Amino acid sequence: MFSSRLYKTTAFISVSSCILYSYKDDIKKNFGNTWLNAAVTEPYSDFTKPYQPVWDDNWDKRELTLKEKQEGVAKPTATRHIILIRHGQYNLNGETDEKRFLTPLGREQAHLTALRLKELNLCVSTIYESTMTRAKETSSIIQKVLPDIEVKASDLLREGAPIPPVPSHPTWVPAPKEFHSDGPRIEAAFRKFVHRASPKQEKDSVEVFVCHANVIRYFVCRALQYPPEGWLRLGLRHCSITWLTVRPNGKVSLRCLGDSGHFPPDKLTFN
Amino acid sequence: MFSSRLYKTTAFISVSSCILYSYKDDIKKNFGNTWLNAAVTEPYSDFTKPYQPVWDDNWDKRELTLKEKQEGVAKPTATRHIILIRHGQYNLNGETDEKRFLTPLGREQAHLTALRLKELNLCVSTIYESTMTRAKETSSIIQKVLPDIEVKASDLLREGAPIPPVPSHPTWVPAPKEFHSDGPRIEAAFRKFVHRASPKQEKDSVEVFVCHANVIRYFVCRALQYPPEGWLRLGLRHCSITWLTVRPNGKVSLRCLGDSGHFPPDKLTFN
Repeated sequence: MFSSRLYKTTAFISVSSCILYSYKDDIKKNFGNTWLNAAVTEPYSDFTKPYQPVWDDNWDKRELTLKEKQEGVAKPTATRHIILIRHGQYNLNGETDEKRFLTPLGREQAHLTALRLKELNLCVSTIYESTMTRAKETSSIIQKVLPDIEVKASDLLREGAPIPPVPSHPTWVPAPKEFHSDGPRIEAAFRKFVHRASPKQEKDSVEVFVCHANVIRYFVCRALQYPPEGWLRLGLRHCSITWLTVRPNGKVSLRCLGDSGHFPPDKLTFN
Repeated sequence: MFSSRLYKTTAFISVSSCILYSYKDDIKKNFGNTWLNAAVTEPYSDFTKPYQPVWDDNWDKRELTLKEKQEGVAKPTATRHIILIRHGQYNLNGETDEKRFLTPLGREQAHLTALRLKELNLCVSTIYESTMTRAKETSSIIQKVLPDIEVKASDLLREGAPIPPVPSHPTWVPAPKEFHSDGPRIEAAFRKFVHRASPKQEKDSVEVFVCHANVIRYFVCRALQYPPEGWLRLGLRHCSITWLTVRPNGKVSLRCLGDSGHFPPDKLTFN
């Protein structure tokens, strides 16, 4: 009797598993990137293992809904160029944000980056700036070289601790409450500013964001759908240029990260 | 009778699941990055979901073995700087590799990048070059500006199709056999050239690799432990500079990707 039940139980589990497995594509489709297709984005340390690729086409939730399609809403057609500038070198000893202003070298870096943006002749529509002193100063130096561009300040772009980095850093160890509060705020910044163009946008656009290393590195990992906890594996020099391109179909590419070739070697700094 | 069996079957599955779940950490530990901890490196599209970070400390298999530790083998102490240079613009219409030589602009790009490397004063120990015409030409122009440096050519660094990119490209669609043969070869190049320093290396080193966009992008994803199928989300201008730093403890960081600020705007090309 027992073995009969065991047999039936085993059979039940086996059959259930087979049925579930045979529907795996549908399950994936309906339940998104969960367990079933998850093995795939692991570090590719074993080249002989099969892997399965992941890209969420609707990462920015801008794909047209069925209702919108029925209503004849047009698809986006414009490309967004998102240019992320880290602020210049600043006075690390300042106790408050107001006292953490740019060093003379930091101001020079901002000016050199402004000149580079100008010579690239990018037709910038908007400059977004973090509300922290070093970012506002950097932004105002850029605005002198690129005048008459709309400027928008945002608290969402302030520096912070996005999520605990992996691997961890030996000395940079923020309190858990910092990740707790900064994390969703920087994620909110990402969702607000990084997405494909609206269907109403007629021409390709170039927007400049003057902000911070952690914010930019987190944006890059999120936009490229790389593991976001890997943000600290990227380094950014002061006033370097990082360029994300978001196509109207939602595809994203990184044109450069931390581009700082426009500085003479003695003006290159990370800290 | 039936409902009793159903009850027992359900109970069996539930209990089994609970037991398995309670052992999940051990299972993970023993079976590596498989199903159980795989949900974690998915694109981070739902910020409310828990995630679990992944970093393989021994990605390059250079950690000392127990035997080596017992034998008193020293740990590595030097840092490796790996500078990856894409070749210059070349004649896309050439039918064979020999006919795909640099354009005049491509030669100028190579010269400008050589000057940039020189002014960065990096103390390059070795130049590795792909054996393809456009890479060899780029490398030889660099060698004129940085003379007396050991040069090593490698077929492993030749251009190719590393793994099918995700998302796929609308027009670049190599035959499956190309990925089949190029994939392990480019992975072999990665394993040969990108790893922490040997314990015998006394000083930090700088090595230059003159090679190709796909090779460089794949190296970057692999070195940073980002999903390697995401390599085509990165873009690289001709003769741009990409800089990986591998610390003696195996930590890796990317100092810049596609740095091309040393070019005047009219000399910037992707194709």
